[in-house]
Amino acid sequence: MDNVFIPFSSSGLPQGSKLSTYLTSRVPDRPELSSALSGLTLSPAGKGRGLGPSARPFTPESTANGSPPQSAAAPAGPATAAGPPGQEAADAAPLFEENVGGTTYYFRAEDAAVQKSAEPPTITPPYTAYVAPPARLSDAQAATHPASFFVSDQLREAILRQQHVLLMQANPQAFPGACPSTRSEDLPTEVDNYHELCLYLPTEVDNYHELCLYLPTEVDNYHELCPLEPPGQPHKSSTFGYVTSAYKATNTKSGQCYCLRRIHGLRLSGTKCLQLVALWSKVNHSNLVTLRELFTTKSFGDNSVVMVYDFLPAAETLMARHFSQPPQLNGFADPFQDPSIPRPYSAQKNAVLRQQNALIPEPLIWSYVIQLTGALRQVHSSGLACRVLDPSKILVTGEYASPGGSDRLHINCCGVLDVLLFDNNATNPLAMVPHYQQEDLVSLGKLLLALSCNSLLAVQRDNFSTSISIVERHYSADLKALIMSLLMPPRPRTIEDVMPLIGARFYQQLDTSGRLAERLEDELGREVQNGRLFRLLAKMSAITERPELNLEPSWAETGDRYMLKLFRDYVFHAVTDEGRPFLDMAHVVQCLNKLDAGSSDKICLMSRDMQNVLVATYAELKQCFQRSFQEVFEETLAKEDAAAS
Amino acid sequence: MDNVFIPFSSSGLPQGSKLSTYLTSRVPDRPELSSALSGLTLSPAGKGRGLGPSARPFTPESTANGSPPQSAAAPAGPATAAGPPGQEAADAAPLFEENVGGTTYYFRAEDAAVQKSAEPPTITPPYTAYVAPPARLSDAQAATHPASFFVSDQLREAILRQQHVLLMQANPQAFPGACPSTRSEDLPTEVDNYHELCLYLPTEVDNYHELCLYLPTEVDNYHELCPLEPPGQPHKSSTFGYVTSAYKATNTKSGQCYCLRRIHGLRLSGTKCLQLVALWSKVNHSNLVTLRELFTTKSFGDNSVVMVYDFLPAAETLMARHFSQPPQLNGFADPFQDPSIPRPYSAQKNAVLRQQNALIPEPLIWSYVIQLTGALRQVHSSGLACRVLDPSKILVTGEYASPGGSDRLHINCCGVLDVLLFDNNATNPLAMVPHYQQEDLVSLGKLLLALSCNSLLAVQRDNFSTSISIVERHYSADLKALIMSLLMPPRPRTIEDVMPLIGARFYQQLDTSGRLAERLEDELGREVQNGRLFRLLAKMSAITERPELNLEPSWAETGDRYMLKLFRDYVFHAVTDEGRPFLDMAHVVQCLNKLDAGSSDKICLMSRDMQNVLVATYAELKQCFQRSFQEVFEETLAKEDAAAS
Repeated sequence: MDNVFIPFSSSGLPQGSKLSTYLTSRVPDRPELSSALSGLTLSPAGKGRGLGPSARPFTPESTANGSPPQSAAAPAGPATAAGPPGQEAADAAPLFEENVGGTTYYFRAEDAAVQKSAEPPTITPPYTAYVAPPARLSDAQAATHPASFFVSDQLREAILRQQHVLLMQANPQAFPGACPSTRSEDLPTEVDNYHELCLYLPTEVDNYHELCLYLPTEVDNYHELCPLEPPGQPHKSSTFGYVTSAYKATNTKSGQCYCLRRIHGLRLSGTKCLQLVALWSKVNHSNLVTLRELFTTKSFGDNSVVMVYDFLPAAETLMARHFSQPPQLNGFADPFQDPSIPRPYSAQKNAVLRQQNALIPEPLIWSYVIQLTGALRQVHSSGLACRVLDPSKILVTGEYASPGGSDRLHINCCGVLDVLLFDNNATNPLAMVPHYQQEDLVSLGKLLLALSCNSLLAVQRDNFSTSISIVERHYSADLKALIMSLLMPPRPRTIEDVMPLIGARFYQQLDTSGRLAERLEDELGREVQNGRLFRLLAKMSAITERPELNLEPSWAETGDRYMLKLFRDYVFHAVTDEGRPFLDMAHVVQCLNKLDAGSSDKICLMSRDMQNVLVATYAELKQCFQRSFQEVFEETLAKEDAAAS
Repeated sequence: MDNVFIPFSSSGLPQGSKLSTYLTSRVPDRPELSSALSGLTLSPAGKGRGLGPSARPFTPESTANGSPPQSAAAPAGPATAAGPPGQEAADAAPLFEENVGGTTYYFRAEDAAVQKSAEPPTITPPYTAYVAPPARLSDAQAATHPASFFVSDQLREAILRQQHVLLMQANPQAFPGACPSTRSEDLPTEVDNYHELCLYLPTEVDNYHELCLYLPTEVDNYHELCPLEPPGQPHKSSTFGYVTSAYKATNTKSGQCYCLRRIHGLRLSGTKCLQLVALWSKVNHSNLVTLRELFTTKSFGDNSVVMVYDFLPAAETLMARHFSQPPQLNGFADPFQDPSIPRPYSAQKNAVLRQQNALIPEPLIWSYVIQLTGALRQVHSSGLACRVLDPSKILVTGEYASPGGSDRLHINCCGVLDVLLFDNNATNPLAMVPHYQQEDLVSLGKLLLALSCNSLLAVQRDNFSTSISIVERHYSADLKALIMSLLMPPRPRTIEDVMPLIGARFYQQLDTSGRLAERLEDELGREVQNGRLFRLLAKMSAITERPELNLEPSWAETGDRYMLKLFRDYVFHAVTDEGRPFLDMAHVVQCLNKLDAGSSDKICLMSRDMQNVLVATYAELKQCFQRSFQEVFEETLAKEDAAAS
């Protein structure tokens, strides 16, 4: 009767069968699960002593006796279950009795009669639980990623960081500026020639700074604006030639977050460019930040054009990721000019040197190549050109997996130049696209050269030969060939001509991507039960100890609720034989899972004064639970009805 | 004082500021979130009436008054906060008072003085929460996948199905056979010529059936064997020419599940073939089921060879997925022979006809092509050949996303033929590999032809021209060219020569894969908080209402625990003004989140007899919580120490 409080065996199963062996031996069998449980800080059992829920006798505080295991409930036990079908009629006797610890319990036999005609080759417990990470995943991450019932710390941190950014709000005290829109007539933003206006605005308008410190509560269909850049004197974007600001904002209709890119002091001279915006909004690619819409607004106190993009929380730019180090640490440092080092190096020596000089590993560069060419291909095949392939306009997300395993690039700010430089007089606004597409290829080549040398200096004309020799020394001939073909004539005609240069690396990228999806599925498998358990426990807490319901103060202490109260004691207030608390998350999870599944396993509940002993199945407790919650819920509805009438 | 029980405003923020507006308006703003809350069945507020946590007055059962909002606690409110720094000294007065509902409360001013010197442009709440699916995901899945705090049903079902399979156990009553190993000398399994043995065994050995119904408890390092095929008279595998069985089993050391593929009645005549197994175990690819090890055993009562593979729960074979329909439904049915239908069709008409004839969509076939060639490339570059590219030996997993979006293929049973047909007399066991690699390419071509025609009949020599014309009519020229090049000479020399025929479809596959990872990250973001909340609530339940601790029966009713008991009432037993229960999951989640974060927000707790009123911050409650749990935990440790001494 040692482990009677965890009646593991399923209906009709002999004790000591495979199932009960499996379940009772689960924690001790797998040390990594045991330690995972101790990580919950609720389980002293995990302290390396292998104390599973049933590895040691323990008694819930409120119950003195064990519940009889299910298998013992059927008098003939497993022998009957395996017997000929003719015996079933005899099993239909109304009650069975069993003596446990000197007390006689009575059971109905219905459970025992079930599942006798067929003998399925396999049986499954009536609940599910996370088991262990699949072997194919644990190879790579065994050290950093032990089995646990919860998502890995690294990934959780990455997700929480994103959610944190999504919940970020503007500090109203940092934006005390009043809306100067009433004075907009005095502002030179009304001047038609918008290009001149832009150069003029920052110096001449004395309330410009105030303008920057003003944040409207609502802009078009967006509210909850939150600046993504520090406030103060804004500076012109070197790429766009205009003052721009970026805001996180929530769409009032969908509730989703977007990034508003505001171009200060710009008036559109026509609506023709909206055609281009419509084209851009149809370009969808996982390596591209989608442009959603464009609108003009005076809400900021000037004439602004706002372009709405998807918001990627907690993303950083390629510039910040790779080009923010001081220049002496990058690829143009001395080691490369040192003639005492013999060249060319072996592949291994190159890898070492790359690391010493903080050069980017070659597989990561190829991963970037594949992602960027994929996005460019989508853009070009839509009849558009990117035009902003700059490290400051490419976002990087996801860095929780092994280095480079989950980095994803997203080309940002597409279409801004198309709008800024739109020529209303041109007959065909797309006439120049083939030219810009060629420029995209050159920009890609420059970007790859800068990444390979780990310095933006690499793309300067004077440094070109040095840069190429750095690439030659530290990377494969394929990478050099790719960069050369993009930068030197004859250049590839289209982005698809680059594919043969990438070659079988596509397979590598796909394999990495497939593994990432498998890992994420595994992580999700750990957490997927917790939401359900949390809801269950929240409902339970809403029932037990409720001071009154419908003016009845003893509601929580009587009837179904009394059963649940005893069950609550059984789950959470278990004590050992010496009367000390027994804390074990596995016990809690298992009891709640069985309750939720309405298992036919039986438990013995005892009142706190030890005068009443009740034997109940989880299925019966589940009915108590559902009825009780329904009562509470209906009282709530009664309130609604009363309010409505 | 309507919404005083949800003191939303953060420290120093004026009420009605952006943050409080955001938080209080969150649920009404987003109908999809509101309905998600109602999906919890705990929130009658979600019944379309827009009753958010603070949209309507309500009072916890045990407290008669509201807690004063934080902003009101600082007497000068936001004006002070925005004022000149010199005013800070004045704010340092020891106590502030405020009258709420006729009662005067006193507060310390420390909180109000914080964060005045710097004005950060943004502020974030002290907790995180899932906000909404990113716009880039909601486009595709808006209809089936509304925002919720829990993982989508489809994906959860897929994950639970996997976990269910992992927990599956053998039914001991279906395997009553006794181990015949004592009689193994009588068995013809001892005969050295293993091929003959195999043909001989099923008919001649009278206890063979018994053998099949026997399941050992442990085999080598694996236990918890569970058959993956129905028991009974086993049949020879047409691919391998041997009787084989597959079992799920758990490694006794790692606790991870593996698939044991047992080859009945086979004795290895040497250990040389283990070199090949070692080679195979190093081939790792996401589209390949990894072979882990090979061992021989007599545990099953005969001489069996067991090959251990990774276990993919809830996978189905490509055969079951695509070739299990009755033959009249497949591509060889009449419509194709009907001369009244003009040919060739338009691409659109082809798509319609494909659907009518249950043909596989072309993008899915290309996805298969890319995955299979990727795995083959890895195998071939390791100096091995697959040799089992058969629909019955390819597993499909993951089908929760949009059709084809997450289907992953895994080539199974690699290396079995290498072991079965191993020639111990050959000087170089790998001599034939180039030949087998060529055969792999032909097998791939046949597989693709069968998939395109949706029938295994397609690969029969007589049907070849019909099959090719079906491919021609219903699929692109590229697919036909790929199949032809694999089946007809001149065939590609290596698998990499196939890449140009796939072309830019690699980008499509990568984009799909990237979106899948994004979607999984989003799903994980929904659930990632729930594990923490569940743990918090489980700890709380272990403290409140505990009958006694360390022989002190009133432990749960005094000191810190009393505060927690009142807090529990505040969270779960809130009632409206009319005394009816107020159930709102958002209220529960927010209170628990603030407790976990130790927020400086204040709440007003009242005893059940309404005689005592306590105003406490969540930070103080968190300290009570931590101290109380520590006490329980230390008592548990004391038990461990006592047991150890």
